[in-house]
Amino acid sequence: MSVETTRYLLRIEYDGGPFFGWQRQEGQPSVQGNLETAAEKLNGEPTPVFGAGRTDAGVHARGQAAHLDIRSDLPQRKIADALNYHLRPEPIAILSAEAVHPEFHARFAATTRHYRYRILNRRADLALDAGRIWRVPVALDVDAMKKAAAYLIGRHDFTTFRDTQCQAESPIRTLDRLSVSRSGEAIDITCSALSFLHKQVRSMVGSLVEVGRGQRHPDWILDILSKQDRTACGPVAPAAGLYLEQVDYPPAALKKGIHYGEN
Amino acid sequence: MSVETTRYLLRIEYDGGPFFGWQRQEGQPSVQGNLETAAEKLNGEPTPVFGAGRTDAGVHARGQAAHLDIRSDLPQRKIADALNYHLRPEPIAILSAEAVHPEFHARFAATTRHYRYRILNRRADLALDAGRIWRVPVALDVDAMKKAAAYLIGRHDFTTFRDTQCQAESPIRTLDRLSVSRSGEAIDITCSALSFLHKQVRSMVGSLVEVGRGQRHPDWILDILSKQDRTACGPVAPAAGLYLEQVDYPPAALKKGIHYGEN
Repeated sequence: MSVETTRYLLRIEYDGGPFFGWQRQEGQPSVQGNLETAAEKLNGEPTPVFGAGRTDAGVHARGQAAHLDIRSDLPQRKIADALNYHLRPEPIAILSAEAVHPEFHARFAATTRHYRYRILNRRADLALDAGRIWRVPVALDVDAMKKAAAYLIGRHDFTTFRDTQCQAESPIRTLDRLSVSRSGEAIDITCSALSFLHKQVRSMVGSLVEVGRGQRHPDWILDILSKQDRTACGPVAPAAGLYLEQVDYPPAALKKGIHYGEN
Repeated sequence: MSVETTRYLLRIEYDGGPFFGWQRQEGQPSVQGNLETAAEKLNGEPTPVFGAGRTDAGVHARGQAAHLDIRSDLPQRKIADALNYHLRPEPIAILSAEAVHPEFHARFAATTRHYRYRILNRRADLALDAGRIWRVPVALDVDAMKKAAAYLIGRHDFTTFRDTQCQAESPIRTLDRLSVSRSGEAIDITCSALSFLHKQVRSMVGSLVEVGRGQRHPDWILDILSKQDRTACGPVAPAAGLYLEQVDYPPAALKKGIHYGEN
């Protein structure tokens, strides 16, 4: 007896520390793998989960998005609870589950991804934020970092800031926002774009910190961007400071089900 | 050959999770015990560390204060680094070490202790903040909590909000500040006083949450305060949400060394 399925958009929080990243990998713990196992327990059959984007090992999420089809006739308000029940004790939490059009696709319908990179600019070791933040002991000049960041906003060839393993066809991306702010010892770098290249955010942050340390002039960022050469990039910032904060969808994509094809 | 000692005021961050509280206890890990071990490694002899206040098992600190005497002739700027070196890998970090008058006392010279209690008002499990925050799944009415909190500000007999094991001579305390604020799902309760009774903050928070849930009217807080009866108190809030944020000292106490006697 066949049961109707409903497609759900999930909003997901996770601690990236214990996982080899978002993507399911044979024999390694992953966020996607854990979600698919939980979904299989709910559905009684293998259930693929499609994420809005892949995060690397150690990268966190406050608002990753993904979709899946649920055969269960549980009411919508119970879906997140049921998945969370099956996810325990993994540090992965379904913040919400929203019924969407059957052709909605979490990856292809996304219009903006928002990332946040957290730095603590202090000398002392991290006691409360270990694994959650990048501690930079040398005083950073945030004004210089802001000047440097401005060069990266807009449409560019980001080859310099792209991992050599990146599988995207084009190195061209449009960075809508890249802002640097300080509150006491905490420095936040937030950025938004339709999509990012592999390790793009951590590559940009690592290079901005070179500027903040005074190792480089803000104009150096323009130089290395123009070179379109991966070897010109500064050191890549550690995964632990990076958070996928939010993924935006146009309301129409959720309701009317714009179909962008399969992943 | 005797070396002069210098008294230092330490500002300390710690994750309370792995410890049986601040206070040194035979055979149990404690923050004070770890600090004294680190200080002994630096001094080459047993070195007592005096805290501004005791925190219970699981309670965190962003700004605990303590003093100790260091025999080392290390310059002041190296003291925190040296202690942090000996504290690794425990989640205890010396944020600063400041040379003070030889009679300065971290407990008796303190004029205000500031605590923060963190609540996340959401249904989903905690993935990133497990052990760092109290998750309350039922919607809380922050306006009702604010009204209730106002009854506690000022000078009162806090017997209702005091652990039966509390060793303070008097149950009377003056609460200078108790504020409740919401930002999205995050609710912060901050409070300040010269000193607090044992489990006073967690007892007040637990009762305020009873009001926030709608289990009790805000005036109930005044009723139970007036009863001066521990059994009238609401459930005590969990340790994991509580942070000792800061301890204030008058500048004169640091420089001129007002002597308040030994602990």
